[in-house]
Amino acid sequence: MPAVKAIVAELPTTPLVRNWSLQDVDVGSPGDDEVLVELYASGICQSDILLGSLPSGAVGVEYPKIVGHEGAGVVQEVGKNVQSVAVGDPVVLSFSSCESCAQCEESHPAYCEDFKPRNYRGKLESTKMSSSGEKVWTEFFGQSSFSQLSVVNKTSIVNVKGLIHDLSELKLFAPLGCGFQTGMGAVQNVAQVTPKDVVLISGLGAVGMGAVMTAAIEQCKTIIAVDRVKSRLDSARKAGATHVINTSDPSFTNLDEAVRALVPGGVSIAIDATGAAEIIEQSMKATRKRGKMILVGVPPLDYFVHIRGTDILNSGRSVAGCLVGDCDSQVAIPQIIKWYREGKFPIDQCVQSFDAVEYEKALESFKNGETIKPVLVWKE
Amino acid sequence: MPAVKAIVAELPTTPLVRNWSLQDVDVGSPGDDEVLVELYASGICQSDILLGSLPSGAVGVEYPKIVGHEGAGVVQEVGKNVQSVAVGDPVVLSFSSCESCAQCEESHPAYCEDFKPRNYRGKLESTKMSSSGEKVWTEFFGQSSFSQLSVVNKTSIVNVKGLIHDLSELKLFAPLGCGFQTGMGAVQNVAQVTPKDVVLISGLGAVGMGAVMTAAIEQCKTIIAVDRVKSRLDSARKAGATHVINTSDPSFTNLDEAVRALVPGGVSIAIDATGAAEIIEQSMKATRKRGKMILVGVPPLDYFVHIRGTDILNSGRSVAGCLVGDCDSQVAIPQIIKWYREGKFPIDQCVQSFDAVEYEKALESFKNGETIKPVLVWKE
Repeated sequence: MPAVKAIVAELPTTPLVRNWSLQDVDVGSPGDDEVLVELYASGICQSDILLGSLPSGAVGVEYPKIVGHEGAGVVQEVGKNVQSVAVGDPVVLSFSSCESCAQCEESHPAYCEDFKPRNYRGKLESTKMSSSGEKVWTEFFGQSSFSQLSVVNKTSIVNVKGLIHDLSELKLFAPLGCGFQTGMGAVQNVAQVTPKDVVLISGLGAVGMGAVMTAAIEQCKTIIAVDRVKSRLDSARKAGATHVINTSDPSFTNLDEAVRALVPGGVSIAIDATGAAEIIEQSMKATRKRGKMILVGVPPLDYFVHIRGTDILNSGRSVAGCLVGDCDSQVAIPQIIKWYREGKFPIDQCVQSFDAVEYEKALESFKNGETIKPVLVWKE
Repeated sequence: MPAVKAIVAELPTTPLVRNWSLQDVDVGSPGDDEVLVELYASGICQSDILLGSLPSGAVGVEYPKIVGHEGAGVVQEVGKNVQSVAVGDPVVLSFSSCESCAQCEESHPAYCEDFKPRNYRGKLESTKMSSSGEKVWTEFFGQSSFSQLSVVNKTSIVNVKGLIHDLSELKLFAPLGCGFQTGMGAVQNVAQVTPKDVVLISGLGAVGMGAVMTAAIEQCKTIIAVDRVKSRLDSARKAGATHVINTSDPSFTNLDEAVRALVPGGVSIAIDATGAAEIIEQSMKATRKRGKMILVGVPPLDYFVHIRGTDILNSGRSVAGCLVGDCDSQVAIPQIIKWYREGKFPIDQCVQSFDAVEYEKALESFKNGETIKPVLVWKE
């Protein structure tokens, strides 16, 4: 098989500064529990950047590796233990899980006991992919989808045959594998909102936008969207936010005050998709009694939630975190596609395509907040 | 009306050291929104002791006052705005709520916006009760039931006519107004357990025992009860605990280890009814992914829950507190009585009666752990 193009993350010389380059990668046939996928598109998520620039060994990451965990493409070859897809099927890729631990058996694969090594690190020894003769760490989130062709773990595969109209839609649906699903699940699975809820959602990337759309679908009474970029706030309004708060507005002082100015009683649900300690603290303050604070954005490693025990007791407040919205992708992705068809989950307003070889341009547009969800296109 | 006996809490000379005495109290007719109740019995709860010995002003408490908030008795006189009871009706008394704030309107009266002043302090100016001509703070938790006769707020009244077989049962059901209801609600309303749950319950007073009984009713797979008194652990076993941990056992090292020895994967729900910082910390450690930690016992005022943000995120764990189990007493008390009749909620194993004038004896038995729930009997 001829070599294909892939973005390979090499060991960063400065921690947290990416050392990525487009390389020619050789790809072999899939193993028994794997599927060879020709990627059409792959969304970029903050976790690609973080887990592709951490020092070696941190949360288990190793180099060289191929990141990318919001892929979509078409099946080229199927391992003998794989029943869920056939050659030619269109697929959206999501995270990987062991399918046999207690959490997986209870349909909570995002809390798979093997989640961290399986998704953050991936595999090297038995990988079928190499660059200049050197094996690269693959199966990042089971998929390593920043590649024209990738050998994917079968548990990362969601077959979307029958759900998509044509293959050009794959670049729209690729990001369903992580960001949008995470926001959706935070609202539906973790917050378990009802129309009575007053919801605060901070950080309008794909996670926050997915949360806004889902809160609108669930007809939450009030949906307050928070960001520092005006165009994102405009998108949130179109997606169903009833109020917006622009933290870069010169009149903005702090989030609790800004929220209380809109809803004096506070919010019943606060979802943080920023990971910023200040926003988390202020969001907690902005909750009413029985309020739920849900952490979705990754906070700094040294950030601790710190709450007086008697305050929790007297107020009935709670603090929870969630990973991938506690979703089962096999359920979540078809559901979001259905909502999109019904005009309720307008991901098309958030997604912008870039030619994969221009990934630096996509990353730049992502960083400065212009693009909510950049998608690298490997094949039109 | 002749004076009646009541336990009056005077200003403590040493904070947290009770200054209580049996006094003759004059009781007038109830106001429009009140009910005059002849108490048959009143359970003793840790909150009576705490809120009856705090320094003046702390959480709003004032002296002299009559505490007691697990009363049961018979209606003697009814204010003109009260429709829920008639003279002669047997009643169980619970906490008071405003019935008009957002939380009350959503059927969460335990989070009434007026909860603290209304329950922890009560009323003085318009009270109908006095000792030696001096008004005393009454309507503690709407009821001030450490008295032979008390003027009770109508919102504290649960009419149990038709639910009890005879008045002698009032001394059994008096404690339903707080402790047992709190434990029940923590399991049913807050944890929302299912048969799949592995539940850890620490502290086997009425709260913990109510939690054990409810977890058993909900058929939780594993119920681990924790205490330092063997007789309480025996009672918990009878009430449905599948395992017990005695923290005073010489072989006991720490709760996390003891729990993991029984369930290596950890628990899905941990309920703390001790308020002890060490037990709370260890209980959190003993939870599995997606585990819920629920604070029910009152921790020290300077105790803060302290959890790394990324740990919450990666594990999907949550921490919540609850007051009175987030119960609506009008629903919870009849439900517990029904369960008791069905043999599923054996409160009779936990309750011990004392003549009200011997309240010091009851308090002593409570303190040393002999009695799970002491009840002061005002009338047989």
